[in-house]
Amino acid sequence: MSKDAVVLLSGGLDSTTVAAMALAEGYTLHALSFQYGQRHQAELTACRRVATALGIKDHRIAQIDLRLFGGSALTADIAVPKDREPVQDIPITYVPGRNTIFLSYALAFAEVTGSEAIFIGVNSVDYSGYPDCRPEYIAAFQKVADLATRHTVTGHPLQIKAPIQYMNKGEIIKTGLALGVDYSMTITCYDADGEGRACGRCDSCKLRLAGFAANGIKDPAPYR
Amino acid sequence: MSKDAVVLLSGGLDSTTVAAMALAEGYTLHALSFQYGQRHQAELTACRRVATALGIKDHRIAQIDLRLFGGSALTADIAVPKDREPVQDIPITYVPGRNTIFLSYALAFAEVTGSEAIFIGVNSVDYSGYPDCRPEYIAAFQKVADLATRHTVTGHPLQIKAPIQYMNKGEIIKTGLALGVDYSMTITCYDADGEGRACGRCDSCKLRLAGFAANGIKDPAPYR
Repeated sequence: MSKDAVVLLSGGLDSTTVAAMALAEGYTLHALSFQYGQRHQAELTACRRVATALGIKDHRIAQIDLRLFGGSALTADIAVPKDREPVQDIPITYVPGRNTIFLSYALAFAEVTGSEAIFIGVNSVDYSGYPDCRPEYIAAFQKVADLATRHTVTGHPLQIKAPIQYMNKGEIIKTGLALGVDYSMTITCYDADGEGRACGRCDSCKLRLAGFAANGIKDPAPYR
Repeated sequence: MSKDAVVLLSGGLDSTTVAAMALAEGYTLHALSFQYGQRHQAELTACRRVATALGIKDHRIAQIDLRLFGGSALTADIAVPKDREPVQDIPITYVPGRNTIFLSYALAFAEVTGSEAIFIGVNSVDYSGYPDCRPEYIAAFQKVADLATRHTVTGHPLQIKAPIQYMNKGEIIKTGLALGVDYSMTITCYDADGEGRACGRCDSCKLRLAGFAANGIKDPAPYR
């Protein structure tokens, strides 16, 4: 019997790896991506490419306008920081409420498709310091999922799965490579150009490049 | 010093009452409404009218497309049930994930406006049996709010407030009338016509009419 799951798919390295892991677990996937006024439209091209390559037939792109609120370098007219030293505070690339909004849409999608899991590529090791990537945040959202939906009444469970939560970037890439993921398809950069070429200097690029270096291989994605 | 709050404003009786209660508590309000492919566009006219009447200067309307998922009489092409007997199961007017999506946007809006509260008009007495209106659901979302945002780091608290949670419809109306709310502005009907006239027969209308009857007065809103 088919078991269905929703996967939040950005077209980046993390969510692509998570989708490959979910497929390896035997799930039929319903992929959900967002067009949220993000500066890097190249992400959308990447998520379509990844969904096709992984053979995910049901892929929906929700239009949401986070510019309505602003407050982030990814949705407002603020420069993406480059060559930043690792710091502990929340960076300007943080988008207020983003993962909560993404998970709430995934919850609706899971309910309508009869899915028993939602896969999300959050990570609390090599990450940018966003509060909504931490395991305690995911646990809190699990409780919302337990109570928010029809599942409450039917007893059909819905699990939020974050399989790369405790992996470092090198381990994530190693896992994906073992599953045959072609990382040249993925875009991680916060400031990719119109052709999807990464900057190599933002927080996100630096973590990614270090992860490939840890595996002793060159990142196959295009850099400018 | 001004204290700010976000209020989820549908233009219905409940959210209008909640907004009036928040104003009476001294909050400067940021109202948030949604255009979500709902059948009753009359709601949008109502929420604008209510925001203006209450003197709320910051009112944003987020466009979200819940038709992407379907699964409800309020977003898909399914008839709204009329003259239904009170039952315990979840009706077809339930929109999967709706309150979670609304609250997640409110969370983003609260963070950007520096608000210390989110007001929501959920109710678990005279309600339609939706799982995401129950106090345990709101408590679970409070935990998400505690962990999801920059507030986590700054220590600036964000409280989800549901002041009509335990009131019956008669008590809600009585509270609003005492605060000078003009209920002729509000629309509660799931199936209002193009001129905003209520049907008088759906679950929502029946609860509303009973609430006015309990106060011994006639509902001033238009019925067809």
